[in-house]
Amino acid sequence: MKARVLIRPKEGILDPQGQTVERALPALGFHGASHVRIGRLVELELDDPEQLPAMCEKLLANPLIEDYEVELLDGGDSTNGAP
Amino acid sequence: MKARVLIRPKEGILDPQGQTVERALPALGFHGASHVRIGRLVELELDDPEQLPAMCEKLLANPLIEDYEVELLDGGDSTNGAP
Repeated sequence: MKARVLIRPKEGILDPQGQTVERALPALGFHGASHVRIGRLVELELDDPEQLPAMCEKLLANPLIEDYEVELLDGGDSTNGAP
Repeated sequence: MKARVLIRPKEGILDPQGQTVERALPALGFHGASHVRIGRLVELELDDPEQLPAMCEKLLANPLIEDYEVELLDGGDSTNGAP
């Protein structure tokens, strides 16, 4: 089964990468962009998608400062790491 | 309008981060995961979503080694950077 994990900085946590992109865009001629947040995308194939939340907690994300969202690409289900 | 950009290493491009995660998972007790690829997730709000492909080419992604996919979260449209 193919799955996708979206990992983003938690609400309220500083995102220096996002801020940098947001400041760089107008200099390149792109105006009207805001709330830029940069996170990570993990795509993988795995036998048992029930393991995904534990994988995220232990390895893929840092649950102190990041939220994660799991999307099962074959099934279409989506579970959120920060309800 | 809210948009999401998924940026991933192109097919055939080495992904050392993904390889590292794939090797670390069995040591943590997770078996059966393969084809782990790690990319970036950019979420932003912007006035003109037509700018997104140009933004990706110029700043958000490196089109030499990365593919990008744009998802408009309010509209539900999706355009791919590597047809």
